[in-house]
Amino acid sequence: MTYCVALYLKDGLVMLSDMRTSAGVDHISTFGKMHVFGEPGERMVALLTAGNLALTQSVVALIQEGVEVDGETLTILTVSSMFQAAQLVGAAVRKVWKRDGAALKEQRVDFDLSILIGGQIRGRRMRLFHVYSAGNFIEATPDTAFFQIGEHKYGKPILDRALTFDTGIWDGVKLVLISMDSTLRSNLSVGLPLDLLVYRRDALRPELRRRIGEDDPCFRKISEDWSQALRKAFQSLPHPEWKD
Amino acid sequence: MTYCVALYLKDGLVMLSDMRTSAGVDHISTFGKMHVFGEPGERMVALLTAGNLALTQSVVALIQEGVEVDGETLTILTVSSMFQAAQLVGAAVRKVWKRDGAALKEQRVDFDLSILIGGQIRGRRMRLFHVYSAGNFIEATPDTAFFQIGEHKYGKPILDRALTFDTGIWDGVKLVLISMDSTLRSNLSVGLPLDLLVYRRDALRPELRRRIGEDDPCFRKISEDWSQALRKAFQSLPHPEWKD
Repeated sequence: MTYCVALYLKDGLVMLSDMRTSAGVDHISTFGKMHVFGEPGERMVALLTAGNLALTQSVVALIQEGVEVDGETLTILTVSSMFQAAQLVGAAVRKVWKRDGAALKEQRVDFDLSILIGGQIRGRRMRLFHVYSAGNFIEATPDTAFFQIGEHKYGKPILDRALTFDTGIWDGVKLVLISMDSTLRSNLSVGLPLDLLVYRRDALRPELRRRIGEDDPCFRKISEDWSQALRKAFQSLPHPEWKD
Repeated sequence: MTYCVALYLKDGLVMLSDMRTSAGVDHISTFGKMHVFGEPGERMVALLTAGNLALTQSVVALIQEGVEVDGETLTILTVSSMFQAAQLVGAAVRKVWKRDGAALKEQRVDFDLSILIGGQIRGRRMRLFHVYSAGNFIEATPDTAFFQIGEHKYGKPILDRALTFDTGIWDGVKLVLISMDSTLRSNLSVGLPLDLLVYRRDALRPELRRRIGEDDPCFRKISEDWSQALRKAFQSLPHPEWKD
């Protein structure tokens, strides 16, 4: 499994993915699921991928090689807007489906894939999309300030409770790290290292890219402090006053 | 969906279930998923059920009417130990499978059911079991102090972080309520009211049975205080010190 989360905030984007890939519990490897493209000052586009690795790697390769969108062959470096970037990813997904769909069906393997794509191109709006395995997509709005793909349930409650569009970028970073930490603890198929990207609106370059490993002191501190803070928060709750 | 959770603690059992049953989003009803049997001073046995309601209601009916276990017809009021009670539930599950399994398969309906059964019979040990749809079962031990059935992922992180076998009973009550509250917020198919049972080891009668509705002041206070405490805990976290 995989867990990827992306925040769409007033001030920018925060994107985080784990790096564990498993084909059964005895076949675990490490693969990047975050792919960042661009040219500082011109464009910054980042993808997070979940699902069948053969499929997502094909999509990531195709959007660099070029895929036809509305009669024009485009790449992730030539699309003129984030909307067109999402269309490009959707077109690449459909191309992979045409190529692999029938063979997978014969082997009873699901065509299982989902992709988050966020970023900004100079002169255009910062946007975040969730592309499905049919190549269609939805867009994040101020009312829905985050998207998750993969093993999303363990890490959702903290986001549901604490995140809004107005959350500051660095509070957002803390929230996705807590959300990821909850998932890491509850599901073995999601694992370190992590890839983190912070993008500030209109910067047209990442503010931070960070690979977070087992011994990253900052992530460990957040994880341990959070456990402690939770226990303290829990102890501060009132005793239920029901009596039979 | 359903969410049920049962804690197996040094001092006793804590069991909690929601009451929402859905057959599609336009067909939502309220059904008890907690079934308590016994005689004060003699036995206290409680079931939590998840899955297809027609199946779980049949199982609950059969264990009251009588099912053959090892050549003897037993009911939930005549079994002599909790182990035998779990066997009885398993036998009832298999009886329902024999009766309904083929017809369900023809309609492509899964034989989907899981049951938690906990309690104590005079002179015997307090135990907690998880019975699967094949009628087999596992038992909680001090190393695994809780079982969940149904929509379990949203409510698992807080239990993974804060619960041990040595957790006090009333702290356990607060934990299952937080775990349920996280699930209620993230999944619409789990809904109030809730059924709560608290059993103290060797008491042979429930210490508390409580139906918790929308306007229960105690549950609301725990839910609100927890949201506040979480936000405070979150704000107390250190700012990540990564810089590019």
